[in-house]
Amino acid sequence: MHSHRIFDPDKNVRLIADKLYESIRELPLICPHGHVDPQLFARNIPFENPTDLLIRPDHYILRLLYSRGIRLAELGIASKDAAADVDPARVWQIFADNYFLFHGTPTGVWLSYVFSEIFNIPEPLNQHNAMVFYDHLNAELRKPEFLPRALYNRFNIEVLTTTDAATDSLSAHTAIRSSKWNGKVIPCFRPDQIIKTYTPGWGNAVQRLGEMVGWKINSYQSYIKAIEERRKYFKRMGAVSTDHDVMIPYTARLQESVAEKIFQRALHSKANENDTAAFEAHMLMEMARMSVDDGLVMQIHPGIYRNHNNMLYKEFGPDMGGDIPVQVEFTRNLHNLLNAYGNDQSFQLVVFTLDESTYTRELAPMAGHYPALKLGPAWWFNDSIEGMTRYRKMVTESSSIYNTAGFNDDTRALLSIPARHDLCRRIDCNWLAQQVARHIIDMDAAQHMAYELTNGLVKKTYNL
Amino acid sequence: MHSHRIFDPDKNVRLIADKLYESIRELPLICPHGHVDPQLFARNIPFENPTDLLIRPDHYILRLLYSRGIRLAELGIASKDAAADVDPARVWQIFADNYFLFHGTPTGVWLSYVFSEIFNIPEPLNQHNAMVFYDHLNAELRKPEFLPRALYNRFNIEVLTTTDAATDSLSAHTAIRSSKWNGKVIPCFRPDQIIKTYTPGWGNAVQRLGEMVGWKINSYQSYIKAIEERRKYFKRMGAVSTDHDVMIPYTARLQESVAEKIFQRALHSKANENDTAAFEAHMLMEMARMSVDDGLVMQIHPGIYRNHNNMLYKEFGPDMGGDIPVQVEFTRNLHNLLNAYGNDQSFQLVVFTLDESTYTRELAPMAGHYPALKLGPAWWFNDSIEGMTRYRKMVTESSSIYNTAGFNDDTRALLSIPARHDLCRRIDCNWLAQQVARHIIDMDAAQHMAYELTNGLVKKTYNL
Amino acid sequence: MHSHRIFDPDKNVRLIADKLYESIRELPLICPHGHVDPQLFARNIPFENPTDLLIRPDHYILRLLYSRGIRLAELGIASKDAAADVDPARVWQIFADNYFLFHGTPTGVWLSYVFSEIFNIPEPLNQHNAMVFYDHLNAELRKPEFLPRALYNRFNIEVLTTTDAATDSLSAHTAIRSSKWNGKVIPCFRPDQIIKTYTPGWGNAVQRLGEMVGWKINSYQSYIKAIEERRKYFKRMGAVSTDHDVMIPYTARLQESVAEKIFQRALHSKANENDTAAFEAHMLMEMARMSVDDGLVMQIHPGIYRNHNNMLYKEFGPDMGGDIPVQVEFTRNLHNLLNAYGNDQSFQLVVFTLDESTYTRELAPMAGHYPALKLGPAWWFNDSIEGMTRYRKMVTESSSIYNTAGFNDDTRALLSIPARHDLCRRIDCNWLAQQVARHIIDMDAAQHMAYELTNGLVKKTYNL
Repeated sequence: MHSHRIFDPDKNVRLIADKLYESIRELPLICPHGHVDPQLFARNIPFENPTDLLIRPDHYILRLLYSRGIRLAELGIASKDAAADVDPARVWQIFADNYFLFHGTPTGVWLSYVFSEIFNIPEPLNQHNAMVFYDHLNAELRKPEFLPRALYNRFNIEVLTTTDAATDSLSAHTAIRSSKWNGKVIPCFRPDQIIKTYTPGWGNAVQRLGEMVGWKINSYQSYIKAIEERRKYFKRMGAVSTDHDVMIPYTARLQESVAEKIFQRALHSKANENDTAAFEAHMLMEMARMSVDDGLVMQIHPGIYRNHNNMLYKEFGPDMGGDIPVQVEFTRNLHNLLNAYGNDQSFQLVVFTLDESTYTRELAPMAGHYPALKLGPAWWFNDSIEGMTRYRKMVTESSSIYNTAGFNDDTRALLSIPARHDLCRRIDCNWLAQQVARHIIDMDAAQHMAYELTNGLVKKTYNL
Repeated sequence: MHSHRIFDPDKNVRLIADKLYESIRELPLICPHGHVDPQLFARNIPFENPTDLLIRPDHYILRLLYSRGIRLAELGIASKDAAADVDPARVWQIFADNYFLFHGTPTGVWLSYVFSEIFNIPEPLNQHNAMVFYDHLNAELRKPEFLPRALYNRFNIEVLTTTDAATDSLSAHTAIRSSKWNGKVIPCFRPDQIIKTYTPGWGNAVQRLGEMVGWKINSYQSYIKAIEERRKYFKRMGAVSTDHDVMIPYTARLQESVAEKIFQRALHSKANENDTAAFEAHMLMEMARMSVDDGLVMQIHPGIYRNHNNMLYKEFGPDMGGDIPVQVEFTRNLHNLLNAYGNDQSFQLVVFTLDESTYTRELAPMAGHYPALKLGPAWWFNDSIEGMTRYRKMVTESSSIYNTAGFNDDTRALLSIPARHDLCRRIDCNWLAQQVARHIIDMDAAQHMAYELTNGLVKKTYNL
Repeated sequence: MHSHRIFDPDKNVRLIADKLYESIRELPLICPHGHVDPQLFARNIPFENPTDLLIRPDHYILRLLYSRGIRLAELGIASKDAAADVDPARVWQIFADNYFLFHGTPTGVWLSYVFSEIFNIPEPLNQHNAMVFYDHLNAELRKPEFLPRALYNRFNIEVLTTTDAATDSLSAHTAIRSSKWNGKVIPCFRPDQIIKTYTPGWGNAVQRLGEMVGWKINSYQSYIKAIEERRKYFKRMGAVSTDHDVMIPYTARLQESVAEKIFQRALHSKANENDTAAFEAHMLMEMARMSVDDGLVMQIHPGIYRNHNNMLYKEFGPDMGGDIPVQVEFTRNLHNLLNAYGNDQSFQLVVFTLDESTYTRELAPMAGHYPALKLGPAWWFNDSIEGMTRYRKMVTESSSIYNTAGFNDDTRALLSIPARHDLCRRIDCNWLAQQVARHIIDMDAAQHMAYELTNGLVKKTYNL
């Protein structure tokens, strides 16, 4: 791969970008938000094969293959009713046949990095060399340097946060901590299941939560106390943050008596839509209050219509590439939460968006004012060359880089982690270089900002 | 005109762009969506004069002239009450006096191409040389090489789709087919009039449809059967697609008995607003179902507030430059349609938008997942240098170019067709060149993508 | 400061941009919209100190300092309950300690200009040289060339519009006019207080208005007559424009009898939310009607949620950096107003937006059609390098530059005026140069457009 890749074609910009990049290239990867399975590090056994490592768990890849008419069953994805029995090598060939789909997409850039920089393959993948790739990767995966812990170390990861349901036992995390390995893998408290009273599994999740904290949850008060208790456990296990998925980030506190009534109705499956929406808005307020109390950084990821493709969801379950964003409103929706807690400097609220029209209009103006609010990096579909570039250009002038949360890779694909960080570092350095070349900032400022964007801001935001 | 026009100033990008452009420059023009009058080719008689050819039918030109205080009557546009009696040379002079308005607009770029490349005039139009231009153009239009069929051949058009009401007799198309000319001009089935029960002409249009298929339409069933029958006729006449204009692209199937009741109320002018909206949403589902059955590609162009300027509309009718876009929502509105038919690979749904905030947020994620969904090119106000550039940068990373429908010129101005294709080809090659120069894709991939963007995708999408 | 600052790194673009810039650099500053206190010029006394001049009145600076946890009291901002008693030099040091916050923001660019070009300080501000800066600035402010009128002349301002409540006595303007100074400082009629029946001060403001025109306002008719009378006074005092702040730019005329009833309910504090919203929508229609009659240019600035941070507002009042934009809709909301008055060429309506998604979707298409409508420049959070660049790229192709209102600085910070105009001129010339370098327009057109963007359009829009 070209050492000046991603940088502007202009020689002036390119040289400055490269200088900035060289100054931060060796910095450790700090990963405060992601979805890598902690069992990988607990077990530390070899990956099965290239297909199970790189294709089947990657919803970015699945969605584009699916869009071209390739059925998930052909890729060996097990449906709810039928086990998948497809030769992983055959799946790899299908993937290679369609590799051209990823040209000009971030997945294409990440995969190039993985093949070239991690597996040292000098040529691009195509339909003809598919099996050569497959065999080479398969052989490499057998080597001890491709065990998960070895990769963690090789990638120079300083800390890796996973995402864990509130009712997760954190047994994998316990196993990692009790092993002699010195990697830092920490959980993140994700209470969606126990908060979303409108989902089918809510009642069971609340019951499980009660079992975990040791008391029966039969009232709003015992429920709140259980959540507080569970957050303490996550904190003891290293957690520094919580994470919240909501369709609409509406926030509004209920009177406790009202919350109790809705909670009871929910327990008896009698809550209506207004109830569950009001309860969710209330619980976001409660999550913020608890964060003020216990110091866990609160993250909100709103605006995704989950499982938009009903048929696919019924057959294969979630995370198959069928989640679609919707428009989001922040100024009015976050008004209550920011007025209650946004002036509190001990509170950190990180907000993400997939609705780029909110960057200049809502989020950057709010982050450039409320002490508690930080903007998360360009997320998901926008964690891309153009997406990250737009983010910097639309956010910085109103919020300054200092009210952003730094980069996170937000991935479940372990091998893509260095690829994603590298891409972000190149984009950031290139963006700074453009400003230096245009005499908007000087080289000293750019150098300082490059460090902040790479390590400083993320450490500060997440208290790492 | 400079051979490197439109390309980036950077020499590196420019040379790559030029190389890519040269590789696709001679490819035929494929025009799967537009509004050229088929009578032009049926009659094949000389154009009246430069004003009637270039100014009066072009709403892009009319709107900007109107915005500067020039009345449509001054331009010789006939109102509903009064014939226009303005010397076309006088109108041409007004146009030339105000030609500066078009600097930096796509119309300016297209007109430059027309004057320079089609009429071989070496200088730009201005108020002083207006009559020289006029006389030269007038003389040229008398020559046989400026007859519509000759221009079609000279422009290297491979296929040209017109837009035709469901109740159009297609007599012009019949005339073209029965002539000895080998140009391929095909209709597109546009049933807006017979679907929009809320418009004044609906009842008459439905009656006319009945006459055409040969039975009286007095029930929902006979209405649906008539539409199916009419689509068959369009297909026999070469049609490969349908086209649908809706303000809000809401889709939802009604029970047949409910559809029947609304249809009856509409026939007796008793349908209310809820009825007509529900019926339109239902008919979009029906149009998709029929497309699955007969293979016609379905196109939706939503989000235009037609005839926003009431006064102008009352006096001069539609298409005078007074249509204004509104915000559009796709994720929820298309949910029913995509769930019913979006997983079907035999179905092609092409969606257009004027609301660029939906590119990264809704359309690219959906097109990058549903096999049936393709994104139409940057449309109308965004069919421009900056608009097409934003489109590529906002759409590609989530949908890949392979879920886009390729270019179409969407024009009623025959002479602008090569200008529009040339502009798009330059923009696309320049965008690819930027990625090659930044080492994001290699030259092989870029070359392949340049072909796909120019011819491959559009042929595949429209089964041409 | 580098003479080619802000221009593209590309040498070709840069040389063209510089040539264009040199051709308009010396043109006078025309300031048709801003918030400088006219008392500055009436009194013409030295500025107190650097902190009171540059920091405390600048909500751009306050908001970013506040976002980093610095309390307004620390900056010596007086709250409603307590006077501030903080050494301005101490505040300056805090500002300098946090100056890095402004890197990459427009405030940073403006401040660099102020320090370098106005105060001739050759180095950038930082925590170490804070007191050197402070002392130097303090000394300079004592000199006669730093008196407000001297600065006005030195900045080459041709006309400066202030913003004045409808009930303002305009005594400062009277004083300026009766002095011998030849600077042209004119008022702008801002009737928000007397129109927003839902605000606490409305009743008093209306009473004050009555006192000023000399009759008791006890009916809708006497109220309308008073506003017309007051506009006449503003016009006699030099005003050429009005300005309107609304959350939602909905416009709709009420029957006079309905307007009267709502007015009476409002007078007796019995108006409900529907009343006040309908009255505001009606009064926008009335303001347009009056503008048609008296020729004052009408400006609308919609879409700001004022005083979003309740706590800060209660303690410190408005304009402390706590205003946050919301989404705005124009196509439907302005429909009534544009249909009633938008075809009238004697009427000028200038619309601003903070919602950039409306640029290509709504505002540019409407401005490119309705003779009365002009787009105001990139506003507030978007009055920045990237914001202005996006504005040109998103607006021009549909509206042409000739339906935009030219630049205005919209500032209350006198010293930032030349900095803001200089930045805009550089951005505009650079944008034109990109088009010349890409052969989209020729140098003659660019030169003409540079003049129009700098002086021509603003003079024409505001009849100056």
